[in-house]
Amino acid sequence: MKEKVSIIVFSGDMDKAMAALIIATGAVAYDMEVSMFFTFWGLQVLKKRKRTGKGFFGKMLGLFLKDISRIGPSKMNFGGLGRWMFKKMMKKHGVMSLEELLKTAMDSGVKMVACQMSMDVMEISQEDLIEGVEFGGVGSFLADAKESRFVLFI
Amino acid sequence: MKEKVSIIVFSGDMDKAMAALIIATGAVAYDMEVSMFFTFWGLQVLKKRKRTGKGFFGKMLGLFLKDISRIGPSKMNFGGLGRWMFKKMMKKHGVMSLEELLKTAMDSGVKMVACQMSMDVMEISQEDLIEGVEFGGVGSFLADAKESRFVLFI
Amino acid sequence: MKEKVSIIVFSGDMDKAMAALIIATGAVAYDMEVSMFFTFWGLQVLKKRKRTGKGFFGKMLGLFLKDISRIGPSKMNFGGLGRWMFKKMMKKHGVMSLEELLKTAMDSGVKMVACQMSMDVMEISQEDLIEGVEFGGVGSFLADAKESRFVLFI
Repeated sequence: MKEKVSIIVFSGDMDKAMAALIIATGAVAYDMEVSMFFTFWGLQVLKKRKRTGKGFFGKMLGLFLKDISRIGPSKMNFGGLGRWMFKKMMKKHGVMSLEELLKTAMDSGVKMVACQMSMDVMEISQEDLIEGVEFGGVGSFLADAKESRFVLFI
Repeated sequence: MKEKVSIIVFSGDMDKAMAALIIATGAVAYDMEVSMFFTFWGLQVLKKRKRTGKGFFGKMLGLFLKDISRIGPSKMNFGGLGRWMFKKMMKKHGVMSLEELLKTAMDSGVKMVACQMSMDVMEISQEDLIEGVEFGGVGSFLADAKESRFVLFI
Repeated sequence: MKEKVSIIVFSGDMDKAMAALIIATGAVAYDMEVSMFFTFWGLQVLKKRKRTGKGFFGKMLGLFLKDISRIGPSKMNFGGLGRWMFKKMMKKHGVMSLEELLKTAMDSGVKMVACQMSMDVMEISQEDLIEGVEFGGVGSFLADAKESRFVLFI
């Protein structure tokens, strides 16, 4: 039986999502089994490029939610300049883009779970997220976490 | 003997405190034993609604420290609008408020430890925090962490 | 064989670096073996006080990167005022400075690893970091993490 890793992706920043996905794909390469649990702002990593929200507040929030191609770094974003600069520097130094890292992780069997409760609160529907994502609550996270060699909150 | 979970609450943001408390109460429901260690900005979750600080700097800092009803989300707070909006959306979608989550956690036996060292540095006294909180240092955290199935830094 | 702890230092904020180093030195005092893995903004904790960067973007980024004496807290920095105030309050209440904590951690055998991949992307060279630091990738982190009693992402 393989050793497991669980990663909660809470923040939804470009740089933190990158760290999470590099650890996830790295762990798979080291023959571990990985679960990623996306909650709150982390849902942006799995979001399609479309407007979300049903009620007034959900639509308001939807104006600010981004998708994987538009989230910025946790520091020095300067209204998008930081994101653009980081993308350039990652490419220059031969690091996969966030989109490629996500695809690699999913193709290599990393389990992607979106937190149903934060989807409800933020009015993000299952159709707003990309294909291949599972849906679950804190129980689903805890079941994976209890069997994991280590758990990260990112 | 029950499996244990330890959670360091460092950030003191509304959304991160919510994630921490949902994981804590969830773990109790899954028959685990939970310790939460509140440090730095996380102390705001346990703070009464009152001014803190003794010296000049402590009083200055005290002007900015909030309590559980006034902390805002880590992103999109917009001077309090975000907090208000999130509260509305949580209520609408049947999610417990932060205050109710904290009460539920404490009532169900989650151990709440406030970091004495950061209380000293930030000039927050034991009387500034709510009833039922224990006080401890890094040793108290490590004793719990060493026995835990997993540890989160939030 | 000693129990191990692994800590990823991602954020590079003064207060989070302090929490990481206090846990690290505390764990050593409790007879544990500690590895710290510095990545992204966390590299500032290990950076010398000098300009970094080779290409245009690297030099641009280098203008904003700080060193251990100049990083500020994650909240309420107010352009450096927060850092100054925290230093005063730490001194007043007998808490070691960040520089002293780092020295203590290194002297007591905490393993300091700088993430080579983020150094490449951010154009920080090995000469830009202080003496006594090792260099490694996600594999180096995972090797330590797999043997650790617990792992933190800070």
